[in-house]
Amino acid sequence: MIKNDLFLRALKGETVNRPPVWMMRQAGRYLPEFMAIKEKYDFFTRCRTPELASEITVQPIRRYGMDAAILFSDILVIPQAMNIEVEMKSNFGPYLPNPVRTSADVDNVIVPDVTQALDYVFEAIKATKELLNDDIPLIGFAGSPWTILCYCVEGQGSKNFAKAKAFCFTNPVAAHLLLQKITDTTIAYLKEKVKAGVNAVQIFDSWGGMLSPSDYQEFSWQYINQIVEALKDDIPVIAFGKGCWFALSEMANSNASAIGVDWTVSPDVARKLTNNKITLQGNFDPSRLLSPPKDIKRMVKDMIDGFGKDKYIVNLGHGILPNIPLEHVEAFITSVKTYNV
Amino acid sequence: MIKNDLFLRALKGETVNRPPVWMMRQAGRYLPEFMAIKEKYDFFTRCRTPELASEITVQPIRRYGMDAAILFSDILVIPQAMNIEVEMKSNFGPYLPNPVRTSADVDNVIVPDVTQALDYVFEAIKATKELLNDDIPLIGFAGSPWTILCYCVEGQGSKNFAKAKAFCFTNPVAAHLLLQKITDTTIAYLKEKVKAGVNAVQIFDSWGGMLSPSDYQEFSWQYINQIVEALKDDIPVIAFGKGCWFALSEMANSNASAIGVDWTVSPDVARKLTNNKITLQGNFDPSRLLSPPKDIKRMVKDMIDGFGKDKYIVNLGHGILPNIPLEHVEAFITSVKTYNV
Repeated sequence: MIKNDLFLRALKGETVNRPPVWMMRQAGRYLPEFMAIKEKYDFFTRCRTPELASEITVQPIRRYGMDAAILFSDILVIPQAMNIEVEMKSNFGPYLPNPVRTSADVDNVIVPDVTQALDYVFEAIKATKELLNDDIPLIGFAGSPWTILCYCVEGQGSKNFAKAKAFCFTNPVAAHLLLQKITDTTIAYLKEKVKAGVNAVQIFDSWGGMLSPSDYQEFSWQYINQIVEALKDDIPVIAFGKGCWFALSEMANSNASAIGVDWTVSPDVARKLTNNKITLQGNFDPSRLLSPPKDIKRMVKDMIDGFGKDKYIVNLGHGILPNIPLEHVEAFITSVKTYNV
Repeated sequence: MIKNDLFLRALKGETVNRPPVWMMRQAGRYLPEFMAIKEKYDFFTRCRTPELASEITVQPIRRYGMDAAILFSDILVIPQAMNIEVEMKSNFGPYLPNPVRTSADVDNVIVPDVTQALDYVFEAIKATKELLNDDIPLIGFAGSPWTILCYCVEGQGSKNFAKAKAFCFTNPVAAHLLLQKITDTTIAYLKEKVKAGVNAVQIFDSWGGMLSPSDYQEFSWQYINQIVEALKDDIPVIAFGKGCWFALSEMANSNASAIGVDWTVSPDVARKLTNNKITLQGNFDPSRLLSPPKDIKRMVKDMIDGFGKDKYIVNLGHGILPNIPLEHVEAFITSVKTYNV
């Protein structure tokens, strides 16, 4: 049904001629066509207008022909739907003016009817599917419950999310209640995304690497795993945890279809830690896209050689940076598409 | 000569009755007696006045009786001595108004005569040694060349030091020139610290974990290792790299006396990655000091059981946070001192 199903085949672990490629945050600030839209419409207008979200989603595909598209949206639409105010401040990032800091605050957080609260996301998916015309698969995503909690409690980005961790370690009962509410909302949300037409989903655990291995199990992985278990029969799930190298073995034993890794894990170590048994996705250092194109080409080839062309999806190890030259992205994508040719 | 030499014996790998304990940033903002001095004197006055630096250094020892003191100072005294302006802004952190961004900027960076430029540090060491009266060892420290470069280029703290990495990846020649200048200055600086009386030194690589394993070798470890090689015959060297789990095996093969690890590495994994052959230091999550004292006691015991009492120095996995209750620090230190009793 999908014409280029390389990405879906890699998720199933099938033998392929070359690995598929996409980039986290591929619809974003490095693209002039994205910046043109950004100048006219604020962040939430872009997310909430299906014509804009779908147009932004396909922009990088038109330019570079990645093997998968990922819906333009944000992980913080979830807390917003849960009755927590979220602002997106320019030159600052997310700002939550009323952070969750007490048990009473957690009680005020709702598990919404996502079909209504996040209707605009499902409409954006339908619009995007039309634009994509089944050429390539569309990925939907959500933040991990732990990562969402980090923003809800901290109220903004942070270097170490000390307030979020303080909340969990001083009030674990309230923390787990909040995590479960986020998990329930996320499962319902992703199931609706599947109904709307996405072909795979990715869970982003951007801040799991702030936790010790045992705290990661307690506050992050068990909730991600609930999501994986709830979705596994509907759709392939990719679990990506930045800095979560220490949990790779556990993640590989789950029912996720693939595990995302960041650039601190070399390909051979990633294969070893996951017992060579699951599809891996990653892990080019986004800053390394600043290297000259000839170096990018060499490094991409080495990376694919390292992971092996099968059970592998080429990606960055985190989102693309805003200041990457277009021809460097071209070098990255082309190197993958001409691998093994 | 040193009455309590537990810390030095652990660095040598000798059998001990219990491991020694100290805490990164133990002279700092969680202590009311430190805050009293902080209210009266600005940051650089505190660093540059031997009476203040030595008093601050011994404050936590008086209160808790750690097994080692670490000189109150800052890693950024090095770039400051190298002709790079450094300010310490309250509620912001370090700020370098003229960051190093070009080859010409690197050419303007000097390798100073440290005996003059950093005279105040050596005076502070002498003053501290008098206060300590050889009761416990005194640790001197420096930032790793890579971590110092991060601040020099970025001009301030950062979540991902993207500007610093961009500089290295687009202008590696200039980056290596700067790294070598920092390395040369640091070696001279630490050798003078040894002359002034410190009993061990620690290299802090706070931002090494931002790099891929191969970039870490190229931009960080080779310079840390130069420092280790230059100092190893004079004094025990501890190498601490936050987020540098991927390099632990290489670090364990060096001539460092101990390797510091953060809390993402469980004790058994840390021992495995270092082939059980070197003294390890760490790795309590600083945020976990917010847990109730009874939980802290249990977790400290588990941690020591995990690392084993020998070839081990109890510490946090990074600096202590400002908002830690005094009785929680007490619980942490006491748990170690009563281990095996």
